[in-house]
Amino acid sequence: MSESTAPRTVGELGEFALIDRINAGRVQAPAVLLGPGDDAALVAAPDGRFVVTTDMLVQGRHFRLDWSSPRDIGRKAIAQNAADVVAMGAVPTAFVVALGCPAETPLEVVDGIADGLWAEAAHAGGSIAGGDLVRSEDIVLSITAFGDLRGLAPLLRSGARVGDTIAVAGRLGWSAAGLAVLSAGADIERFADVVAAHRVPQPPYAAVLDVVHGGAVARTGTPHALTDISDGLLADLGHIASASGVRIDLDSAALRDPFLETIARGLDADAAQWILAGGEEHAFAAAWPCDVTLPVGWQRIGRVFAGHGVTVDGAVRPGSGGWESFGGADSAVSAEPR
Amino acid sequence: MSESTAPRTVGELGEFALIDRINAGRVQAPAVLLGPGDDAALVAAPDGRFVVTTDMLVQGRHFRLDWSSPRDIGRKAIAQNAADVVAMGAVPTAFVVALGCPAETPLEVVDGIADGLWAEAAHAGGSIAGGDLVRSEDIVLSITAFGDLRGLAPLLRSGARVGDTIAVAGRLGWSAAGLAVLSAGADIERFADVVAAHRVPQPPYAAVLDVVHGGAVARTGTPHALTDISDGLLADLGHIASASGVRIDLDSAALRDPFLETIARGLDADAAQWILAGGEEHAFAAAWPCDVTLPVGWQRIGRVFAGHGVTVDGAVRPGSGGWESFGGADSAVSAEPR
Repeated sequence: MSESTAPRTVGELGEFALIDRINAGRVQAPAVLLGPGDDAALVAAPDGRFVVTTDMLVQGRHFRLDWSSPRDIGRKAIAQNAADVVAMGAVPTAFVVALGCPAETPLEVVDGIADGLWAEAAHAGGSIAGGDLVRSEDIVLSITAFGDLRGLAPLLRSGARVGDTIAVAGRLGWSAAGLAVLSAGADIERFADVVAAHRVPQPPYAAVLDVVHGGAVARTGTPHALTDISDGLLADLGHIASASGVRIDLDSAALRDPFLETIARGLDADAAQWILAGGEEHAFAAAWPCDVTLPVGWQRIGRVFAGHGVTVDGAVRPGSGGWESFGGADSAVSAEPR
Repeated sequence: MSESTAPRTVGELGEFALIDRINAGRVQAPAVLLGPGDDAALVAAPDGRFVVTTDMLVQGRHFRLDWSSPRDIGRKAIAQNAADVVAMGAVPTAFVVALGCPAETPLEVVDGIADGLWAEAAHAGGSIAGGDLVRSEDIVLSITAFGDLRGLAPLLRSGARVGDTIAVAGRLGWSAAGLAVLSAGADIERFADVVAAHRVPQPPYAAVLDVVHGGAVARTGTPHALTDISDGLLADLGHIASASGVRIDLDSAALRDPFLETIARGLDADAAQWILAGGEEHAFAAAWPCDVTLPVGWQRIGRVFAGHGVTVDGAVRPGSGGWESFGGADSAVSAEPR
C-alpha cells in the first residue's frame, strides 16, 4: 500500500516530477535523435521530408473515463494519428503529445494514458519524442504524429481513376457498434469484441505498409488513392471522390457483416448505418488499379465511375453523413451514428 | 451588416466549412510541400532531421478573452512554440494547430485566432501546414512547431562551461508586469507597453538566427548553451545549470529595469520578481564563450561557475520558483509571479 503522504494526484506531484515519472524507463525509437528534456526534440527525416498530422481528443467528446480505461484512451489517441500517417503511405516514426488535465487527476490516470501512448506508439513503429503538460478543466490530449515516406510519393486522396477497385482493410462499423452498446447500457461482456473495437481502434498498419514499403509492392502495385476511415466510410470516400473528381459506388452486399447485424437487432439499430457512417474505425480505404489482385487483408467493396459523390448500389443513400465535430449533443462521444 | 441567416457561430457554420474558411487565401511557406486537405501534411526537412516542440494553451489558464484579442492569442500560441524551435538553433519552417472550442464560439473569434496564427507563423518564417478542429468546453489551442537546423548541431541546455558569459536577448519581466497590470485592473493605456508584451510575446528570433545561421557567426561563434525564457529566468537558467552540471550566478545590477521599477512601485509589486521569475517572456538566454564580443541584441547578465543551481550576486534567492503548470488558483493565467 502507498504511504498516505505519497502524492496521489497530478497537482500534488507537480508538473516536472510528473514529466520525469511518465518518461522514466522509456526507450525511444531509432528515429528520435533527441527526446524529452530540452527546448525541443530532434527527429530523423531520412528522405528530407516528413509526413505530419495532428488530432485533439477531448474528454466527454471523444472519450469517457467510465467507458474506457486510461490506457485505452492513450492507445486510441496514438492509433488515430498513426492511421493518418499510414494513410499517406508513410511509416510512423515518432509522436509528440500535449496533455491537459485537472490538478485533481489521480496519478494512475496519467500513468495509464502514458502507458497506452507508449504501447501504441511502439506498435505503430515509433515512440513519444516529447510533449507538454498543462492544467485544464477536462482531460485534453493533442497528438502530433510523424512518418517517413522512404523516398516514395505520398498516397493522396486525389489519385482515384475511373475503373479503379475500391477496397478496405480493417473492420467497418465495429467501433460504432461498440459505442451503441455502451450508449444503450447493454451487456458489455456479451458484446466485448465491438466494445473493445470502440475503446481501442486497431488500424491494420501492416496491410498498407507491407504493400507500399514491403515485398507485396512488387506483386500488387500501390493504390492510386488511400485514406483512413475516421469520419465514416461514406464521408471519407466522399473526400476521395471529391479530390479525384470521380464517383464511387459501393456494393452493399460486400459491406454486410452478419455479426454486426445480430448485435443491431438486439439494440433495434441499423448495422448498415454503423458500417457506412461510423467514424473512428481507422480502417483504410483505397482505390486500386482495376486489374490488381488485392493483397492479403484487403476486401473489394466498390468501384470508381465518372461523376461525383458516393453511391450505394447506384443510389445516393439519404442521411448518411459522417462525423462532424460540432454536431450532436454536448455529451456525445464521437463516432455516434446520426 | 450581415444577414440574419448567415452563420455566426462555429456550430452554425460547421467543421468542414470553417476549415475551408480559415484556410482560404493562405499562402504556405516554401517548406510546406503539401498543406491541408489530405490525411496528413508533408514538410521539408532538408538536412534529414527536424526539430519539433509542442505547447498547449488553455482558456482561463494561459489566456483570457477579456484580456487578449483572438488575434493576440493566435500570435502568442505560435510565438511561444517558435521560440522553442529557435532555442535549439533551428529556423522555424512550419506549424500544425489543433483547436478545440465550443459550438457557440463566434466565427470572429476563430477568424481572429487563425489570423494571429498565420501572422506570427509568417513572422517566424513558416506557415500553418495543417490542423484539427474539435468541440470542447473551453478554447484549447495545441501547437506543434518544426524547425530546420541546416546541418548544424542543436544548441542544447547541456553545453554551458565554467567561465562562460550568461547573456539574454529580449525583454525580461515585461510579460509578468503586463499580467500584473491586467490582474490589478490598473490603467491599461498607461502601461500599454507591458500589457502588449503580455498579450503577444515577441521573441527576438533574429538575435539567435543571425548568429547561428547568418553572417554574425563568423565574428562571434555560437553559444555553448541556449534556452528560451518560458518558465521564468531563474527556472530556465536552472535547467541549463542542471543539464550542464554548473552553477550560474546572475548580476542583479545588470538585470535592473528602471521602467519596470516605476510600474512596480505603482502596483506595490517587486520588479525584480517579475524579471527573475516571470514566465512567458520568450526572451533567449545563452551561455557564451567567455572571450566573446556579444552580438547586437545580447546583454551580459551573469557568469558560469563550478557548482550547481542559480544564484543572484552569489546567493540563492528565496521563493523565486518559476511557472509550474499545476500551481496557482484555477483562474490563474500563466506567468503570474508567485
